[in-house]
Amino acid sequence: MSIRKSSPVAHRGTDSKSTATVHRRPIDRRLVEQIVRQIVLEQIGGPEYAPELVVSISARHVHLTDQDVETLFGPGHKLTVMKELYQEGFYAAEETVMVVGPRRRMLPTVRILGPTRPHSQVELAHTDGISLGIDCPVRQSGKIEGTPGCVIVGPAGVVELKQGVIRAERHVHMSPRDAEFYGVKSGDRMSLRVYSPCGTVFQDLLVRAEEKIKLEVHLDTDEGNAADVDHATKVELVRQSSGYRNS
Amino acid sequence: MSIRKSSPVAHRGTDSKSTATVHRRPIDRRLVEQIVRQIVLEQIGGPEYAPELVVSISARHVHLTDQDVETLFGPGHKLTVMKELYQEGFYAAEETVMVVGPRRRMLPTVRILGPTRPHSQVELAHTDGISLGIDCPVRQSGKIEGTPGCVIVGPAGVVELKQGVIRAERHVHMSPRDAEFYGVKSGDRMSLRVYSPCGTVFQDLLVRAEEKIKLEVHLDTDEGNAADVDHATKVELVRQSSGYRNS
Repeated sequence: MSIRKSSPVAHRGTDSKSTATVHRRPIDRRLVEQIVRQIVLEQIGGPEYAPELVVSISARHVHLTDQDVETLFGPGHKLTVMKELYQEGFYAAEETVMVVGPRRRMLPTVRILGPTRPHSQVELAHTDGISLGIDCPVRQSGKIEGTPGCVIVGPAGVVELKQGVIRAERHVHMSPRDAEFYGVKSGDRMSLRVYSPCGTVFQDLLVRAEEKIKLEVHLDTDEGNAADVDHATKVELVRQSSGYRNS
Repeated sequence: MSIRKSSPVAHRGTDSKSTATVHRRPIDRRLVEQIVRQIVLEQIGGPEYAPELVVSISARHVHLTDQDVETLFGPGHKLTVMKELYQEGFYAAEETVMVVGPRRRMLPTVRILGPTRPHSQVELAHTDGISLGIDCPVRQSGKIEGTPGCVIVGPAGVVELKQGVIRAERHVHMSPRDAEFYGVKSGDRMSLRVYSPCGTVFQDLLVRAEEKIKLEVHLDTDEGNAADVDHATKVELVRQSSGYRNS
């Protein structure tokens, strides 16, 4: 828990086994293929490739542009790596900022994640949004059009974000090889089943398949705490029927 | 959201229809009976009795003994009703207390729920526990043996709880008639499926069937926020196979 609070992202890896799910919908061809592939692989002595599933809980954090880093921390300032994240090239920075909401409520210490980006963005859990007085829309990272803004305060200056405060949509990063393993593609939806004292199935995780990316589910702290992921005995990633969303 | 923060319990009612679920376990007799009953009822023009399902989000709150009320608020003090809760005879009190954790972190304003009880108890979401520095065990209300304690501060005095800080186990209250409708009994487990932009299935809700109790699921704020219950379009209560727990 201390890791989760001090660092924006805590990693937990458990079961990586792909499983077949049963929906009250007609089973589609890709699901049948996945089941058959799994049975065949199990009968010939296990799969040749079994991705390791990691579930990470992202605490509230900020992404900044180069310019906003300089405004907040001083001219020429570059972010300092505090801790490498699970995905190569990404890190939690030493630097933190204060995030101020519309009613002058604030979160005093919000970690910055690097590297810098083309647009600044604040990612909060819904509970954080309530304490700040911001009704965060659920958005895919980077899709910030029309979202609420906030004020970001650093030691050298202030940035007023006109938009960019979101609750990150739950999602799963993976490589093209992992996508093939699960029988999914970018934009598909999967479910994450958490076996714990607070057993929970999270639905409609957005699949983001890219080269050089490791298999990793990103949940926020509300989701991690609701499912008591700290005490999970097993997690399973399951594909949903093609094009099917639960919401 | 303001309701949720200012009042310990916010109510949301939607779909009350009982549904059949599919587990990867042998279907048991009671599940078959439930499905058959539902099909028959639908064919003869709908069920005679359809309970209204209410899902309530309980924010952090405190239950107190008569003696602790007097210690905290003064001799002879009785709790004042601020707002009636959904279950008859239960209420959110005008009175609030400060809850202090082991590292002198505190929650300044925690609502008291009445009526008073034989044992004082503090119910927190996991997120609240983290901010207080208390690792809350998941417990059924009243089962507080061996749980962490805290300090409760009121305007007239202080109570040191030796135990009683819990995360309330997700549960569903119902009448014996509702229990019969769903084909469950006290101590069974059910699942709650929330259809929302953050679609989630909460498993292993403890069934508590009692006379004169209305059908009501209790989630905590982590669970409500993780599933974005505020924006839910539908909720479904589904019984799990007999004796089957997911954790």
